[in-house]
Amino acid sequence: MTQTFYGQINPPARLLMGPGPVNAHPRVLRAMAADMLGQFDPEMTEYMNQTMDLYRRVFMTKNRWTMLVDGTARAGIEAALVSLVEPGMKLLIVRAGRFGLLLSEIATRIGAEIATLDIPWGEVATLEQIEGAIKTHRPQVLACIHGDTSTTMAQPLDGVGALCREYDVLSYVDATATLGGMAVATDHWGIDVVSGGLQKCMGGPPGSAPITISDRAAAHIFARRHVEAGIRGADTTDGVRARIPSNYLDLAMIMDYWSEKRLNHHTEATSMLYAAREAARIMVEEGLEARFARHASASKAMCAGLRAMGLDLFGSDAHRMTNVTGVYIPASVDGERVRARMRNDFEIEIGTAFGPLQGRIWRIGAMGYNAEKSKVLLTLGALEAALRAEGHHFVAGAGVDAALAAYGA
Amino acid sequence: MTQTFYGQINPPARLLMGPGPVNAHPRVLRAMAADMLGQFDPEMTEYMNQTMDLYRRVFMTKNRWTMLVDGTARAGIEAALVSLVEPGMKLLIVRAGRFGLLLSEIATRIGAEIATLDIPWGEVATLEQIEGAIKTHRPQVLACIHGDTSTTMAQPLDGVGALCREYDVLSYVDATATLGGMAVATDHWGIDVVSGGLQKCMGGPPGSAPITISDRAAAHIFARRHVEAGIRGADTTDGVRARIPSNYLDLAMIMDYWSEKRLNHHTEATSMLYAAREAARIMVEEGLEARFARHASASKAMCAGLRAMGLDLFGSDAHRMTNVTGVYIPASVDGERVRARMRNDFEIEIGTAFGPLQGRIWRIGAMGYNAEKSKVLLTLGALEAALRAEGHHFVAGAGVDAALAAYGA
Repeated sequence: MTQTFYGQINPPARLLMGPGPVNAHPRVLRAMAADMLGQFDPEMTEYMNQTMDLYRRVFMTKNRWTMLVDGTARAGIEAALVSLVEPGMKLLIVRAGRFGLLLSEIATRIGAEIATLDIPWGEVATLEQIEGAIKTHRPQVLACIHGDTSTTMAQPLDGVGALCREYDVLSYVDATATLGGMAVATDHWGIDVVSGGLQKCMGGPPGSAPITISDRAAAHIFARRHVEAGIRGADTTDGVRARIPSNYLDLAMIMDYWSEKRLNHHTEATSMLYAAREAARIMVEEGLEARFARHASASKAMCAGLRAMGLDLFGSDAHRMTNVTGVYIPASVDGERVRARMRNDFEIEIGTAFGPLQGRIWRIGAMGYNAEKSKVLLTLGALEAALRAEGHHFVAGAGVDAALAAYGA
Repeated sequence: MTQTFYGQINPPARLLMGPGPVNAHPRVLRAMAADMLGQFDPEMTEYMNQTMDLYRRVFMTKNRWTMLVDGTARAGIEAALVSLVEPGMKLLIVRAGRFGLLLSEIATRIGAEIATLDIPWGEVATLEQIEGAIKTHRPQVLACIHGDTSTTMAQPLDGVGALCREYDVLSYVDATATLGGMAVATDHWGIDVVSGGLQKCMGGPPGSAPITISDRAAAHIFARRHVEAGIRGADTTDGVRARIPSNYLDLAMIMDYWSEKRLNHHTEATSMLYAAREAARIMVEEGLEARFARHASASKAMCAGLRAMGLDLFGSDAHRMTNVTGVYIPASVDGERVRARMRNDFEIEIGTAFGPLQGRIWRIGAMGYNAEKSKVLLTLGALEAALRAEGHHFVAGAGVDAALAAYGA
């Protein structure tokens, strides 16, 4: 082992305009500089209760069970699936991108019987297709992605909850990439469980997964509750259904921990709780409608700017996420060289792509703290320079001017 | 929903002298105020590589596979068990406290065949007992806790690794409560997998679980590898053994993510990585021996002070953890009232206890940033005042003076 002592953390001031993680709001970073509290201190449990209340607003829900899973967004997805879906239960997954595939991957490990509604990357499922798949497969749980950053498309969810209730299906939606940037209308949609992350439109760091759970889903999950022997009390009873195969991601235990019972489970990740609370506080202060409009304006300007540079956008305008845009890499251009120029010369990062879209599109985000006019314009200006350097032909300045025009300036 | 806007995070300046979480080192808190990086940015992957190197020193190992699991210490425990132990495999668990029970709890959910070596709370297992249990049960994996804060006892592990190799047993140790405070001598012990947390002697926040994995354990885990369909490349091959039933806690995927392959898994929790790196950097700068001695001095002074106040310590001196001390609550005293007085009048917190020890002992920690002479003395002085107020008889000042004497002052 070498004896080097590495220097202090000192990242470059880079503008992260990819599909996330993106720059965190400075207030969120400052909140994390506060010191620890004992996990059952009244100040700590009050911060937890406030966080529950704030995320009810973020998720646009009255769900009592609205809290954090202590892990990245993926931990929230797995907590939802492992807690909802018992081995052998039938799960219908709407798959229209990489994160749809991830749902399958996780569910396979749980031992679910999986049916899929597969949609070409760049498209979304219609309500009729979803109803058809429910009728064909008769699942007990339906899972889908709201905004799949791999394709930059947002799945419409109006009516999906009602459909699921009609057919007695529990529903789960992963809203990691849209939470804080587009309306995640949990109660209006009637979706049972929705989870997210902080590192995209919430403007926080990755590492905490907000989640909300309807009463009927909570009842199903509590029927799988099993309290640890080490902390079992006289008032604790186990559920009748199959035990949840994970302890760490057991939502019954996590709900008990966040309830007045405060049954010890994990030790709440204090700094990430501070971050999650501050990110939600900023969102509530800004106002949800204003925040969604800010993202939509940034998206509109970004799309206008990219098109004015002679670039083609991926996917349909009707279902585009308003916080990340897929754009085809021109045939004459080396996509990775453009990204390198933007990073090396401008300290601006745009995203590459996964699977069938790798090397074919860039993904340019304007999320959370970065969904701002100045950042959209700076990104387009840098992209213009990088494309010029690579020999792509277009009217210099057209991208920036089109974005300015879209902003009405 | 109410329309209140909660104030900013502003916890009281409380001295946390319980069994953890404890106050974080200010440098660790400051490191978390740095902004995000793209997860595959060279600066980010370099921070990840440095973190691996730093934790090799923390775990006193040459293990290549030394990294972070993105969750609290409990996530590290479950990642180790779910990745090592296949359903139906026989697991021997040494249980001498609440966290031994937790190992059973997690392993039961995995579907392991569990055998236990049960030791009364306050004692530890001898090497002969462990060998006897291995001979009786012939397990494929052995799991135990290094320092079980529920009892404040540290399990001696010298020779346990050699024993396990002799009987072809893979070994796992949870060192959450000792990492950074007592020697966690992974290679010297010959233990295959060791995991920890930041919120105790590492002086960081809860929410990141450092872990180290021997080559032979890594080979076993990689034999269970299954790459996600969404990111599968031509160079990826699946293992032959039973697939790991969790995706989020799949150590094969986490190792691939931390390797040069950088196979996408979760999005690394950037701020917690910064915290983990800084906590380890502080430890390496201080020097491991100096750091362990600092904890041992604080423990010695704390024990001397408590005894001088006429209090009896729980468990044997020979196996006491040097960062948390169990002390009997005098029969004439209301333990919770004493804790409330200390918190309300002095902003100092000491710990209560779990299970059979609840209401019988307090647990007083001096961990990480708090394993300091001044904090030990302030805690003893506050406890003296609280005990006097509750009518416990002892020579006023005796506790503080005995601790000062133990420090040689």
